[in-house]
Amino acid sequence: MSHVQVSELRVRYAETDQMGVVYHANYLVWCEIGRTDFIRRFGMSYADLERAGFMLAVSEASVRYHGAARYDDRIRIETRLADVRSRAVAFEYLIAHADSGERLVSARTTLVALDPAGRPAVLPPDFRAQLQSAR
Amino acid sequence: MSHVQVSELRVRYAETDQMGVVYHANYLVWCEIGRTDFIRRFGMSYADLERAGFMLAVSEASVRYHGAARYDDRIRIETRLADVRSRAVAFEYLIAHADSGERLVSARTTLVALDPAGRPAVLPPDFRAQLQSAR
Amino acid sequence: MSHVQVSELRVRYAETDQMGVVYHANYLVWCEIGRTDFIRRFGMSYADLERAGFMLAVSEASVRYHGAARYDDRIRIETRLADVRSRAVAFEYLIAHADSGERLVSARTTLVALDPAGRPAVLPPDFRAQLQSAR
Amino acid sequence: MSHVQVSELRVRYAETDQMGVVYHANYLVWCEIGRTDFIRRFGMSYADLERAGFMLAVSEASVRYHGAARYDDRIRIETRLADVRSRAVAFEYLIAHADSGERLVSARTTLVALDPAGRPAVLPPDFRAQLQSAR
Repeated sequence: MSHVQVSELRVRYAETDQMGVVYHANYLVWCEIGRTDFIRRFGMSYADLERAGFMLAVSEASVRYHGAARYDDRIRIETRLADVRSRAVAFEYLIAHADSGERLVSARTTLVALDPAGRPAVLPPDFRAQLQSAR
Repeated sequence: MSHVQVSELRVRYAETDQMGVVYHANYLVWCEIGRTDFIRRFGMSYADLERAGFMLAVSEASVRYHGAARYDDRIRIETRLADVRSRAVAFEYLIAHADSGERLVSARTTLVALDPAGRPAVLPPDFRAQLQSAR
Repeated sequence: MSHVQVSELRVRYAETDQMGVVYHANYLVWCEIGRTDFIRRFGMSYADLERAGFMLAVSEASVRYHGAARYDDRIRIETRLADVRSRAVAFEYLIAHADSGERLVSARTTLVALDPAGRPAVLPPDFRAQLQSAR
Repeated sequence: MSHVQVSELRVRYAETDQMGVVYHANYLVWCEIGRTDFIRRFGMSYADLERAGFMLAVSEASVRYHGAARYDDRIRIETRLADVRSRAVAFEYLIAHADSGERLVSARTTLVALDPAGRPAVLPPDFRAQLQSAR
C-alpha cells in the first residue's frame, strides 16, 4: 500500500490576496513542501539530491480548487507518489483544512531529473529505489 | 477569429530560485497578468469588475513547462479566451521568450464567478458579452 | 523581564533566489510569522483582531543582514515587543539558524492601528494591555 | 547633479494581501526593479555583473510606508545612488502613484559585493566608475 506523507502548516498573511483567501499560485508552493517532506522521509533530502548534482524540475502541474484557505488556518497536505520512472516522478496532493478536514485543493505534479547543466538525466538508481519502496 | 492579447514583462530577481531559473509557481502569476490585460482590453478592468461586486476565482489550472526563463529575460505572454459560459470562463496562455520566441510554458486556467459572499454567481451579462466579442 | 517568543520554520525552495540563498524580502515575511505567534501567545490572535475591526499596518521596517539562510535550513525567529503606544506597536526580531545558532538577520518593525476604512485608530485597550503584560 | 532613474509598473493581484493593499514586503521587490534599471542604464546589467562573477547582496534595508498601493494601480519608482564605496553601494528609492503622485514608500538599501564563493569582494573598478558617473 502506498505511503501517504502528511505535512502541516499555518497560512501566512503574505499568502493571502485581496479576495481574503490564499492566492491560488501558493498552493503549488505547499505541494513542494509536501514532496520535500515525502522525499526526506525516504532517506535522502532533496537538498542532498541537489548536492549530488541532480535537480528535479516541474514539467507538468495540474491543480483543482475546491475551497478556500484563509489567514491563520491550519492546513494539512497529504502527498502520495503517483508514478516513478527512470527520468520522471509524479506526485499527487490533497490539501485540506487540518481542523475541519474540508478539502481545498487536489493537485498533481510531474518532475523530470536534470543534470547540473540543465539537461535531462536519469534519476540516481538508489533514489529511485527509495521512492519505489514507498509505493 | 479569436483575439490574442500580448503582454510583456522582464523577469525579476525575486522570481528566480536556486536552480537559477524562474520558480515554477510564478508562471501562474504571469498568466494572471495576461488575463488582466485581456479583460482590460475589452472595456472593463478586473478591478472594476471587483468593485461591481464580482470576483473571479481560479477553479482549475494546468501548466506545461517546456523551457526555463531566467533573470532579466524579456518575456511575452499570449492570452486567448478558450471558453465563456454563464458561470465560468477559461483562458489559454502561451509564455515565450520575447527575443528568441522560445516557448517556455503553455497553460490553461478556468475561473468561476463569485459574489461578495464567495458564493457561485452568474457572470454580469455585459461582461460576458464583451468577452464573447473577443472570440 | 520581557517575553521572547520563539518561532521555528524550515526554508522553502520558493524562498530562495538564484544567488542560492533566501531572497532578502522574505525575512520580512518571517518577521510577520514571529509577531503573529507573539500576539497569539497573549490571548488574542491577529486574525481575531482583524475580525474585531482592527488592522495593524507596517509603517516602518529596518533589516540588517548578517548571514544567509539556505534551502531546507531550520530557522529560529525570536520576537520581542520593543514598544507599545496608543496607536502604534514596535517589535524586534532576531533570526538565526536553529541548529548552529548563527545569526542571520536582526530587524525591527513598527505597526500602526487602522480602522476598517484604513484610517489611523487607537489600539483596543485590552489588546494593548495584553501586550504590555509581555514587556 | 545626481541621476534619478524612473521605473514604472502596474500592481499585480498576487502582490495584494487580505488588507486589500500591497503586502509590505513587496516594496523591497520593487526597489530591486528600480536599482536593476538604474544599473542597466549605466552600461552594465546586473545579470552581466553576475556573469562576471560578482554578486550584490543586500546588507541593510530600511523602509517607511506613507500610503498604500492597490491592485492595478500604476506605480512609479524613482531610484537614486546614495553612496558608492570600494565594497558597498547604497541606493535610495521613492515609490509613488504614477497618476496622482501620492507618495507611498521611501526606502534605502545598502548592498555589498560578494565573490562567487559568497565572500566579501571589491566592486569591479569599471562598474564602480560607471556608478560614480551617475552621482
